[in-house]
Amino acid sequence: MAQGRRAGFIAVGSELLRSGRLDTNSLVAARLLRRCGYALVEKRCLVDDRDEVAHAIGQLLERVELVLVSGGLGPTADDITREAVADALGLSLVRDPEIEAALEARFTRLGRVMPEIGRRMADVLLGAEVLPNPHGTAPGQLLEVRGRQLLLLPGVPSEFEAIMLQHVVPRWGEAAGVSARTLRLAGVYESQVEDRVAPLYERFGRDNVTILASRGRVDLLLQAQGPKAEAELAEMESAFAATAGADLFGRDDETLAFVIVEQLRRKGWTLATAESCTGGLVGAELTAVSGASDVFVGGVVAYSNELKSSLLGVPASLLAAHGAVSEQTARAMAQGALTLGATCGLAITGIAGPSGGSPEKPVGTVHIAAVTPSGMRHAGYRFPGDRAMVRELAANFALDLLRRAVGEGP
Amino acid sequence: MAQGRRAGFIAVGSELLRSGRLDTNSLVAARLLRRCGYALVEKRCLVDDRDEVAHAIGQLLERVELVLVSGGLGPTADDITREAVADALGLSLVRDPEIEAALEARFTRLGRVMPEIGRRMADVLLGAEVLPNPHGTAPGQLLEVRGRQLLLLPGVPSEFEAIMLQHVVPRWGEAAGVSARTLRLAGVYESQVEDRVAPLYERFGRDNVTILASRGRVDLLLQAQGPKAEAELAEMESAFAATAGADLFGRDDETLAFVIVEQLRRKGWTLATAESCTGGLVGAELTAVSGASDVFVGGVVAYSNELKSSLLGVPASLLAAHGAVSEQTARAMAQGALTLGATCGLAITGIAGPSGGSPEKPVGTVHIAAVTPSGMRHAGYRFPGDRAMVRELAANFALDLLRRAVGEGP
Repeated sequence: MAQGRRAGFIAVGSELLRSGRLDTNSLVAARLLRRCGYALVEKRCLVDDRDEVAHAIGQLLERVELVLVSGGLGPTADDITREAVADALGLSLVRDPEIEAALEARFTRLGRVMPEIGRRMADVLLGAEVLPNPHGTAPGQLLEVRGRQLLLLPGVPSEFEAIMLQHVVPRWGEAAGVSARTLRLAGVYESQVEDRVAPLYERFGRDNVTILASRGRVDLLLQAQGPKAEAELAEMESAFAATAGADLFGRDDETLAFVIVEQLRRKGWTLATAESCTGGLVGAELTAVSGASDVFVGGVVAYSNELKSSLLGVPASLLAAHGAVSEQTARAMAQGALTLGATCGLAITGIAGPSGGSPEKPVGTVHIAAVTPSGMRHAGYRFPGDRAMVRELAANFALDLLRRAVGEGP
Repeated sequence: MAQGRRAGFIAVGSELLRSGRLDTNSLVAARLLRRCGYALVEKRCLVDDRDEVAHAIGQLLERVELVLVSGGLGPTADDITREAVADALGLSLVRDPEIEAALEARFTRLGRVMPEIGRRMADVLLGAEVLPNPHGTAPGQLLEVRGRQLLLLPGVPSEFEAIMLQHVVPRWGEAAGVSARTLRLAGVYESQVEDRVAPLYERFGRDNVTILASRGRVDLLLQAQGPKAEAELAEMESAFAATAGADLFGRDDETLAFVIVEQLRRKGWTLATAESCTGGLVGAELTAVSGASDVFVGGVVAYSNELKSSLLGVPASLLAAHGAVSEQTARAMAQGALTLGATCGLAITGIAGPSGGSPEKPVGTVHIAAVTPSGMRHAGYRFPGDRAMVRELAANFALDLLRRAVGEGP
């Protein structure tokens, strides 16, 4: 790793070892710790067992410079992280009267009485710094142990991220001198991006670039460190953006749907969707953006041929001649979406499988069309994978086609 | 844990330590190992570092009866799991001529030449049993170490699961005598379920019941072991199903959308949706079910008031009098969905936030209506959480209201 500081992550919670749950705080940790100059090299999920957690903390503190523990700071008997740390390091726990008073005030404000066991959330490891929790009750705790850092944060995702952003990143991020930028690409596969960026590795260092790909979207994570980090990062960004070309749709936390909503707003255009095989996925993505209602009027999920005709005006003769999954139908659906009262239309029709394929139109065949005041675009695909993957690829490539269509021209 | 055998899981792969990736094989492992009588007590993600992986395998073999390692069995230099195990246990690697020949044949079949480095996939730990990979090239390996089991499986999810199902579960599942069943509930919160099932814990054992909840859906994981496992499980199932009542919608892998598609098919009914705040989420859920096109004709995402009127026939005067988010509008939207050519309609209208709330109708206010040939149902909610959570709760409660509506009567 370029900057050499290593972090380990422990998620405490028996529920994380069962078949339906995944810890997601480690994703937030990986991203934010990178800004602080730490590379995450190990993560563990552990059951709520005081000995096990104590053991793991001891092990990790010997191997990495920062150990971040998520969870187990709540009020119940299952919440054993504080005690586990006390065991692991031979430290005592001290009840902090200030935190206790704040806890009581919080309960009073909510019209409830704090249960006795809730006072445990005011127990602080001797010598630890308390990191206030802006979104909840249990505060974080930060402890220096033989020159290494031990950071305890609540497991509730919103509280975990809030304390990281308010107390951890400002403190370590600047000192680390690490600058990071994510370039977001869509409508392209990982292998294509890898070929194009390979010549840049030598110039900027292989460790400073990470490629993350997922179903038609590719993120390029760039970082630079040291006194000239900002200047270097700017140079990297412009070099990688040049190779990305029109596949680049945004930076950092910008989603494809967010970028489209902003594009449409800038142009004063509105959008309606006409979905078949994606069944509402595209509408769901777009409306996940707060404020989408300014530009998104709505859409039609035209799963049956009858609805393709009755709501979108696709002629039955066209459907009979070319089939529901065809370039012609996609174009007619996009045109039909305009009749919902929008200036732009986006249509998707395809065969998601597992049944419905034929030799000429196998499972994975998808046609997409986007129409704007500047014109019509069409793209045809044969996507790999199962039903879920074909649908996600179709939704992602459709949003990307729309982005390119809306983005062109003045 | 009831049956006392503990398993640890290690996912090997540097990409799993970055901000965009989560290991999901551990979810499959947790579920399938449970059928084999093992409880997962720890999982770790590690970078592709031979020493780190060797170290972790050594540590876990001292603490649990089974260590399952996912990934690092491919052909590249990054794939270091085989060597790490050899280091950890002081075993040698032996190239297996049979596997080597199979690898070569596979490449020939694909019209390619096997690269020299690919032969590494034929390296087997001395004394290990080879578990053939029905979906890929690298086989699994099973080794007994001082009375404990070490299982190495490829990290590609389809290959991981296939080897578990074909080679591991049949071998250990029967011997363990563990029977398991999941009861799936919807339209209910975890705390309500907990209160109702609490009296059953004593009778069947707290360790045999796990509650997993997520946004309006609750799973009850039941298990029994020993010679009378099947009979005990049947007794548990009937007792828990009785407390669940009408909230129970399915078993094991059945999703809410799958159950609804089956219900509609049985009754010979069809469905159209009218979504506002969910923006297509409900349609996307329904069409995730293969064969949904038999009963789902499609729907309208009526995000704007204009579309609510033009496509669903909601009178503008009704919208003006009661607002777009109201019981009256939800009922009119559901009725309007029938005009798309279906016998059942499902409508959702709400305020997902963060903006758009008012003192009378705060963010989280959602109205749902379902109409079937048996009549109309309505439900109003004030959901907690952010935009994404309100939308997911709305989609889940809407599907559940529809399930109850379609399920009633003959």
